[in-house]
Amino acid sequence: MSDTRKILEDIASGKLSVDDALVSLKTEPFDDIGYAKVDLHRKIRQGSSEVIYGEGKSPEQISGIIRSMKEHGQDRILITRLSKEKADAVSAEHDIRYSEISRIGIAGENAPADGVGRIVIVTGGTSDIPVAEEAALTAEFLGNEVMRLYDVGVAGIHRLLAHKEMIFGASVIIAVAGMEGALASVVGGMADCPVIAVPTSVGYGAALGGISALLSMLNSCASGVSVVNIDNGFGAGYMASMINHVGC
Amino acid sequence: MSDTRKILEDIASGKLSVDDALVSLKTEPFDDIGYAKVDLHRKIRQGSSEVIYGEGKSPEQISGIIRSMKEHGQDRILITRLSKEKADAVSAEHDIRYSEISRIGIAGENAPADGVGRIVIVTGGTSDIPVAEEAALTAEFLGNEVMRLYDVGVAGIHRLLAHKEMIFGASVIIAVAGMEGALASVVGGMADCPVIAVPTSVGYGAALGGISALLSMLNSCASGVSVVNIDNGFGAGYMASMINHVGC
Amino acid sequence: MSDTRKILEDIASGKLSVDDALVSLKTEPFDDIGYAKVDLHRKIRQGSSEVIYGEGKSPEQISGIIRSMKEHGQDRILITRLSKEKADAVSAEHDIRYSEISRIGIAGENAPADGVGRIVIVTGGTSDIPVAEEAALTAEFLGNEVMRLYDVGVAGIHRLLAHKEMIFGASVIIAVAGMEGALASVVGGMADCPVIAVPTSVGYGAALGGISALLSMLNSCASGVSVVNIDNGFGAGYMASMINHVGC
Amino acid sequence: MSDTRKILEDIASGKLSVDDALVSLKTEPFDDIGYAKVDLHRKIRQGSSEVIYGEGKSPEQISGIIRSMKEHGQDRILITRLSKEKADAVSAEHDIRYSEISRIGIAGENAPADGVGRIVIVTGGTSDIPVAEEAALTAEFLGNEVMRLYDVGVAGIHRLLAHKEMIFGASVIIAVAGMEGALASVVGGMADCPVIAVPTSVGYGAALGGISALLSMLNSCASGVSVVNIDNGFGAGYMASMINHVGC
Amino acid sequence: MSDTRKILEDIASGKLSVDDALVSLKTEPFDDIGYAKVDLHRKIRQGSSEVIYGEGKSPEQISGIIRSMKEHGQDRILITRLSKEKADAVSAEHDIRYSEISRIGIAGENAPADGVGRIVIVTGGTSDIPVAEEAALTAEFLGNEVMRLYDVGVAGIHRLLAHKEMIFGASVIIAVAGMEGALASVVGGMADCPVIAVPTSVGYGAALGGISALLSMLNSCASGVSVVNIDNGFGAGYMASMINHVGC
Amino acid sequence: MSDTRKILEDIASGKLSVDDALVSLKTEPFDDIGYAKVDLHRKIRQGSSEVIYGEGKSPEQISGIIRSMKEHGQDRILITRLSKEKADAVSAEHDIRYSEISRIGIAGENAPADGVGRIVIVTGGTSDIPVAEEAALTAEFLGNEVMRLYDVGVAGIHRLLAHKEMIFGASVIIAVAGMEGALASVVGGMADCPVIAVPTSVGYGAALGGISALLSMLNSCASGVSVVNIDNGFGAGYMASMINHVGC
Amino acid sequence: MSDTRKILEDIASGKLSVDDALVSLKTEPFDDIGYAKVDLHRKIRQGSSEVIYGEGKSPEQISGIIRSMKEHGQDRILITRLSKEKADAVSAEHDIRYSEISRIGIAGENAPADGVGRIVIVTGGTSDIPVAEEAALTAEFLGNEVMRLYDVGVAGIHRLLAHKEMIFGASVIIAVAGMEGALASVVGGMADCPVIAVPTSVGYGAALGGISALLSMLNSCASGVSVVNIDNGFGAGYMASMINHVGC
Amino acid sequence: MSDTRKILEDIASGKLSVDDALVSLKTEPFDDIGYAKVDLHRKIRQGSSEVIYGEGKSPEQISGIIRSMKEHGQDRILITRLSKEKADAVSAEHDIRYSEISRIGIAGENAPADGVGRIVIVTGGTSDIPVAEEAALTAEFLGNEVMRLYDVGVAGIHRLLAHKEMIFGASVIIAVAGMEGALASVVGGMADCPVIAVPTSVGYGAALGGISALLSMLNSCASGVSVVNIDNGFGAGYMASMINHVGC
Repeated sequence: MSDTRKILEDIASGKLSVDDALVSLKTEPFDDIGYAKVDLHRKIRQGSSEVIYGEGKSPEQISGIIRSMKEHGQDRILITRLSKEKADAVSAEHDIRYSEISRIGIAGENAPADGVGRIVIVTGGTSDIPVAEEAALTAEFLGNEVMRLYDVGVAGIHRLLAHKEMIFGASVIIAVAGMEGALASVVGGMADCPVIAVPTSVGYGAALGGISALLSMLNSCASGVSVVNIDNGFGAGYMASMINHVGC
Repeated sequence: MSDTRKILEDIASGKLSVDDALVSLKTEPFDDIGYAKVDLHRKIRQGSSEVIYGEGKSPEQISGIIRSMKEHGQDRILITRLSKEKADAVSAEHDIRYSEISRIGIAGENAPADGVGRIVIVTGGTSDIPVAEEAALTAEFLGNEVMRLYDVGVAGIHRLLAHKEMIFGASVIIAVAGMEGALASVVGGMADCPVIAVPTSVGYGAALGGISALLSMLNSCASGVSVVNIDNGFGAGYMASMINHVGC
Repeated sequence: MSDTRKILEDIASGKLSVDDALVSLKTEPFDDIGYAKVDLHRKIRQGSSEVIYGEGKSPEQISGIIRSMKEHGQDRILITRLSKEKADAVSAEHDIRYSEISRIGIAGENAPADGVGRIVIVTGGTSDIPVAEEAALTAEFLGNEVMRLYDVGVAGIHRLLAHKEMIFGASVIIAVAGMEGALASVVGGMADCPVIAVPTSVGYGAALGGISALLSMLNSCASGVSVVNIDNGFGAGYMASMINHVGC
Repeated sequence: MSDTRKILEDIASGKLSVDDALVSLKTEPFDDIGYAKVDLHRKIRQGSSEVIYGEGKSPEQISGIIRSMKEHGQDRILITRLSKEKADAVSAEHDIRYSEISRIGIAGENAPADGVGRIVIVTGGTSDIPVAEEAALTAEFLGNEVMRLYDVGVAGIHRLLAHKEMIFGASVIIAVAGMEGALASVVGGMADCPVIAVPTSVGYGAALGGISALLSMLNSCASGVSVVNIDNGFGAGYMASMINHVGC
Repeated sequence: MSDTRKILEDIASGKLSVDDALVSLKTEPFDDIGYAKVDLHRKIRQGSSEVIYGEGKSPEQISGIIRSMKEHGQDRILITRLSKEKADAVSAEHDIRYSEISRIGIAGENAPADGVGRIVIVTGGTSDIPVAEEAALTAEFLGNEVMRLYDVGVAGIHRLLAHKEMIFGASVIIAVAGMEGALASVVGGMADCPVIAVPTSVGYGAALGGISALLSMLNSCASGVSVVNIDNGFGAGYMASMINHVGC
Repeated sequence: MSDTRKILEDIASGKLSVDDALVSLKTEPFDDIGYAKVDLHRKIRQGSSEVIYGEGKSPEQISGIIRSMKEHGQDRILITRLSKEKADAVSAEHDIRYSEISRIGIAGENAPADGVGRIVIVTGGTSDIPVAEEAALTAEFLGNEVMRLYDVGVAGIHRLLAHKEMIFGASVIIAVAGMEGALASVVGGMADCPVIAVPTSVGYGAALGGISALLSMLNSCASGVSVVNIDNGFGAGYMASMINHVGC
Repeated sequence: MSDTRKILEDIASGKLSVDDALVSLKTEPFDDIGYAKVDLHRKIRQGSSEVIYGEGKSPEQISGIIRSMKEHGQDRILITRLSKEKADAVSAEHDIRYSEISRIGIAGENAPADGVGRIVIVTGGTSDIPVAEEAALTAEFLGNEVMRLYDVGVAGIHRLLAHKEMIFGASVIIAVAGMEGALASVVGGMADCPVIAVPTSVGYGAALGGISALLSMLNSCASGVSVVNIDNGFGAGYMASMINHVGC
Repeated sequence: MSDTRKILEDIASGKLSVDDALVSLKTEPFDDIGYAKVDLHRKIRQGSSEVIYGEGKSPEQISGIIRSMKEHGQDRILITRLSKEKADAVSAEHDIRYSEISRIGIAGENAPADGVGRIVIVTGGTSDIPVAEEAALTAEFLGNEVMRLYDVGVAGIHRLLAHKEMIFGASVIIAVAGMEGALASVVGGMADCPVIAVPTSVGYGAALGGISALLSMLNSCASGVSVVNIDNGFGAGYMASMINHVGC
């Protein structure tokens, strides 16, 4: 029974006054802690654990948001774009696992891996690994088995072809590449599963901070490729997890 | 048993000479008809029916490619970006169903709808409908149930909220919008399934032919949103179908 | 009686010689203190208190301008883009109230709140707060009642909907958002008062330092939305104050 | 009494069943005529008459939307971006006043002019007049007195200075200019009321179809200037009307 | 003996007066026919046959330039960007071979193929063929053996891999591709000879008229790839020919 | 004696009443003919003959402006961007000389050539000639001797070097070039007079409609080069004339 | 008598051997000091004193170039973009006057002011002063009388109008402005002499580091305005000096 | 005999089992050392020595890759974009020659110079030298004779003309220039060999970090010019070496 129907039936049955009903219908499904409106129903609404975007928040703010979440029963929390310094500061109050290369902190356990299949993450070069790891840890946090296949850029296509089986065995692939971003197209052409392309800001000059790779991926001649923002490993991991749980 | 292993075992057993094996390993899994290398193994390789991109091909070329496909047993063919004039010309030789608004032609039947759930397609305005229909017909062709929810742009958010159930009941959503492209973020925030965002070239001035909507969608503050090229309804429908068949 | 008519009549009546009149007509309504032409008639001409743009001025220059203003009877002065260091230095000579988050310093009292109604300031996220506060303090300085509604971005539309009344009760709204800037459109669609949209440089990659949000806001499908420069909280607060005093 | 409270009280008093209430709460405040969701409550929600964006809609669609509006009691309708051909076709069914230069059609009377003051519209050159007229007719339709001051671009500043009184007497100003768009800054510096700047696509080469004027206006060194999309005369007229009715 | 030395020695020996020498040193090595300065020494200076860029020249101008060239002994002339209509008009006076797909016209014979090896031209799709043919005919005109390998885009990498030998056997490769332009990187990674990349304007939306492919190619992660302008098949063919004649 | 002093003295002497003086001081030095404010004092204020920008004006408007000018004693009028069709229509009422290639029409005589020296106009190619002619005719109209040196682009530097004397003998040079716009730098390096660089929209692909040449010219490594808008031959001719009359 | 004629006559008269003549004709009119080819004939060729661009050169390199120049008789040297640190280091060997705000160093005296008239330099704000001073010191170095009129931006047009006489009395004007760069148009409309517009990188957000002001100035609706690169005060001063010496 | 044929024949002759053959066919021709897949067959596949891109790799990673290469018999290794600090750290384990200006480190000897002819490298200014040296050392490492011609920008065209012989004697030319990048066109017009153009990020303002030079070079009106990424000296040197070894 939906919440709205429940409230209306309670009015009809006299259990709830009109004024209380008005309040209930408006009750904020978030905790207002001043500098942020912590979204507590999101777990239910979006079916996922909670995430804090660490960039531009002070360690104190991050700690406060974690505290608020925990008080409301949220025990699996992912913090992205968390610098080493902030991670250390947050650790004073909260128990978190921290990965420096991906700048990810995790409070609580990963969700059990219960997706449809396996997420494979490929990168063009070694410089793309931080973004790839952000995607990998996000996907693992959200309950997915992840395989990594790094440094298989198209300039040495044999390195990718040597791992065809891994590509064929994936239920979702995340292709992470900077410079010309051609990896997404090649992988997209080989795979028969959805490919999430993540352009990275790796490169210089006409790479334009990732714009070149981004355009490349948007124009992929392969079907079944969609794109997230530059360096957005988290977004790719989140999207891949959603796909890997379709119908679950 | 894989093709390669089969060939190698045939050599081992003497069924195949080395020279014939070399030929087999190299046999092109496509039909070279001069102006195109028709990809005949793609059905198997990518697990989908075949698609012809109609833009920039003459009716004669399109008819020839259809003929080559049919001769190799491909009986479900989707032709995108097919103008009314070309559709008429192609119809002289081949039996196709044609939709003018989406510029899509289809030879043969749609694949039976056997996806995990239902694909919902939303648009911001009426001008986005051609792109949305390209997505819808593509997804239906590839074996998906599709629901349409058009003209629910964020400037009148109540129109979208009135159809919450449809959003909540989707397994994949395609959000099609031009101008500022905000629809993708709002839908992405409401839904708990993957959202494929399609920017359209609808708008003028600073809409920059769809670039504004594209940037908007790439920067979506909602998680679980990924983006395809401007006006790429086909790409969105194809991606959504892949997602709707994950694990199938 | 206008100044010009006054001067001309004084000539006619012989009170003023032609040469003196020429001088009077040309007298600069500003104080030339070398590095700046302090605009002393602006209070009258534009009907507002005076503002100093702090960026790129030394503390000495800022102090000098304040001194010149005070000497000419200007006792309400707003200084924007004032770093903590400069604020400290200026405080040595002048009594100012300083807000670090918005980088605003104020000498003298705020003007009494005498606008038509109330200015409501909404932000998409917590990172947009510095810009929002610049707008809020500016509007308060210029004599307006201000309400703040922060962190109500469209990815969690229920947070905004829960405060519908605040939106409906505004005489002007300032919508501050980075990333995809969709907040302006959603608020613009809900409200029946003018909305000033302020794109912020919050975001990364394809956010392009605020360009993405800026384009979004310019292309808003909602009517009654106009836009100021990226991160221009002051401009939005000033504009909102002007609107809130139309007819006053 | 709000609609929601009314419905809830009707449930409480037994006048309305829960199921009917659910339907009422969800009843779409728009008429779904297939290709569009005509927004019928918008008059109340946004306090204005209704507007149809004519671009990309067929005359049949436009006529249908007008019909639906009229049937729901909406008798003042503005149609923008309406070509001469479409206007002629729509006139077959509906009685509309048509202005070719501004491409605006109006069904019914203008709202009575009941704003706070007067809207003044200035243009840089004669080529900006179509956009200015779109703004002027929109503002008049929405119930405003409008004054026009055309061809007063900054290259001959004396033409603008000769009409200072008109600038000083406005409650809102709309500044329409292409090329370098400097008019907005000069007017913004002179006026003590809000200025809505409209960049136009007038110009060539580095005018970049209006982007140059747009950037200029966004960077205006004058306070109290905000900007709408390139060539968006309607948006400026609508915004100006809203400002001119603040507190009304 | 260089021309300059010759002239100086003639002065020394009295064969030439100072004034005549001044004239000789300044004599224009081109024929001034009013609307053009036909470059007659270029054959010697750049070691190649002569080329006319047909775009923006009238058939009469083109015919006039051919005439001037022929009169000065130039009998191998390539005309690029020559529309069918102009080709017909020019044919009235001059005997030319015309290729409509590449819009190339040739007066006289191709130079004999005397390069170091073979130029291989690959394209991503069938829509890239016009640009590829411009390159092919240019290279053949300049004395090169050319092999064509069309429609081998990276979305079906097996089509390219099936022709590895052709790639390995080239002395120069021209890679022609639109959309994401990934072909250049894949070919660049496979080949051990110079690769000239030609972005084409094939694609739509974020393809930005070829800019996306151009950026991709400039950022190629493969070494040994350099790039010419969008759709510049002629430039690629000319450059490839120069490379194929290095040391000849 | 200045006009203002004159008016003031007339008041002092009683020749002029205060009210009349106010009117005089405000009298518009332009003729308001509805669609344009014809600037009649400009001849004196800017020391030049009058110019009409023909683009976007109807033949009737152009004829009306010419009529108004003539009535106020202006007998030398230049009309730019005047299409053949409009020129024919305007000729029905006014006697004008028309140049189709430059789209310039002239009523009355050119001003007598009374500049300091000679203006030399160089172009990179034949396609740049229309823009160059617009500059040339403008400069001649404004009273300058002009020399033309066309088709001397830097790809054949000897063509330019052969005319060194012409470069050295100029008092101002206008360098007109599209594509990479390098001509301005080379000429700027050779000349010892001011160089006005005019980028043209000649080129394709990465020429970006003249943006590439524009950027090139703005970044010229040669000193003494300044730039006008793309294809702005008129602006260059006007500027060159002003320079050629400095001190006159 | 030209150098070339001199050499040729010396050959004719036997004074010079052919080989020596060849050497003479090729003798480099610059001093090759390894890291730079110091241009020693430029004084004659371009009729100006010498300039060193200090950016990206070490103090040692700058000192070396000055030394080479002095040894060849060049005693007036301007060094631009010279940081305080480098200036101090260079001062150890050479006697230079240094201006920190404009980052200009000068060895030797300014050229005597012998131009046609006076150069007036105006700025929009105080932040534009460094660029303006670079222009001013350059022009003074090259022999010009310079007047400064700073902080007269168009948002307070009366400050500019109060100095009309200075504008009218100039032979060349340099207009320096950031943000929207409107100053160039207003000054261009008032003045009857050439205006050199210098966009500055002053501003933020949509100012795009000076691109906005640059575009504004290129699109100026005033005639007689040309533009140099962003922040290029030196270029403007050099160009203005050239103009001020036309015919000298 | 090819590797594949060898393996197949071994199966046929019973020397190799099918399973072993499958393994052999898939054996990775690279050494997987965790953070990188070191490409060991590339020497053979691409016919060149090995290169490490130093940017974004730690000294430990670089040392590890060198170690892996040496263990597999690779004794000529080029490391690009190697900072002084990293070079020092790597030197602790490996013997490398280091050039600070070009940031290049080399382990082992250069390949013997065995190209077709000579590579000439020209720069526009002294600031372009670091990029030029990266190209020069790369080319020398790969076995080429290199000549340097620095600081010959087009603003002083005589400096370039004085070295015509060097230009005419090259088999390949690398033209390195920032700002307006005109050098490539002038050199391209003079030379009769392939020209590789390298835009540099030298310049400011509208130089846009090298984009201006890049566009210039792509639009070169000279034939036989192709372009690499901004500041990509390595890429140019590599490409030039390939060209200089065509047919070798």
